[in-house]
Amino acid sequence: MTDITITPIGILHCDLQLRRETPRNYDISSEEGIIELYPRYIQGLDGIRAGDDILVLFWFNQARRDILRVHPRGDTNRPIRGVFATRSPVRPNPIALSQLRVLAIEQNLITVRGLDAMDKTPVLDIKMTM
Amino acid sequence: MTDITITPIGILHCDLQLRRETPRNYDISSEEGIIELYPRYIQGLDGIRAGDDILVLFWFNQARRDILRVHPRGDTNRPIRGVFATRSPVRPNPIALSQLRVLAIEQNLITVRGLDAMDKTPVLDIKMTM
Repeated sequence: MTDITITPIGILHCDLQLRRETPRNYDISSEEGIIELYPRYIQGLDGIRAGDDILVLFWFNQARRDILRVHPRGDTNRPIRGVFATRSPVRPNPIALSQLRVLAIEQNLITVRGLDAMDKTPVLDIKMTM
Repeated sequence: MTDITITPIGILHCDLQLRRETPRNYDISSEEGIIELYPRYIQGLDGIRAGDDILVLFWFNQARRDILRVHPRGDTNRPIRGVFATRSPVRPNPIALSQLRVLAIEQNLITVRGLDAMDKTPVLDIKMTM
């Protein structure tokens, strides 16, 4: 159970400053923003084009890591359940997964739509969808 | 660009011992195995049942982190491209994402099908599919 060290590859810039105004999932979001990839990783973007859907792994640095059971989507009418049976940001390792549409890509800046993450959220990885 | 520390929540047990025998993606795999969740996290499993599909984030601790361009799926007939435009295990933060079918769940042991990860791979997170 060795600890793992991860260095973010970039950071998100968008208008979402408050948790309560942030969409609860990417499938209900039309929020746009820009992923700034740190310049040392720019070669890794080769092949991503406007119109692609990408999977982005974010680090939810404001999420609690010490809670194991939640109400799904924060809805107290829904029975409490284990965080691994939900998409809650609350979890021991708060890695969030969003499927985003690439609107434009220029150098190390990727304009995306579908955001459910707040401004200044660290980015851990980008993958193609299956 | 602060480093992030992640503690695995569990470990994978399966028959896949060699990279060359490991399916290249979960969508072409029928390999079965057991995810051992470390006991301190067991409450987080509440609500996961046999028959569910779950997303599992693995840490590919054997993958190279210093390569930014690859041939997709290791196929040298396909043009080289940036790792963020692929699903290659090679990437700066080798977090792998698999969609797995839960075959059984008993205490902290989840039997799953669809593996594209090797025996002893650390598990970082488990989420419901959308």
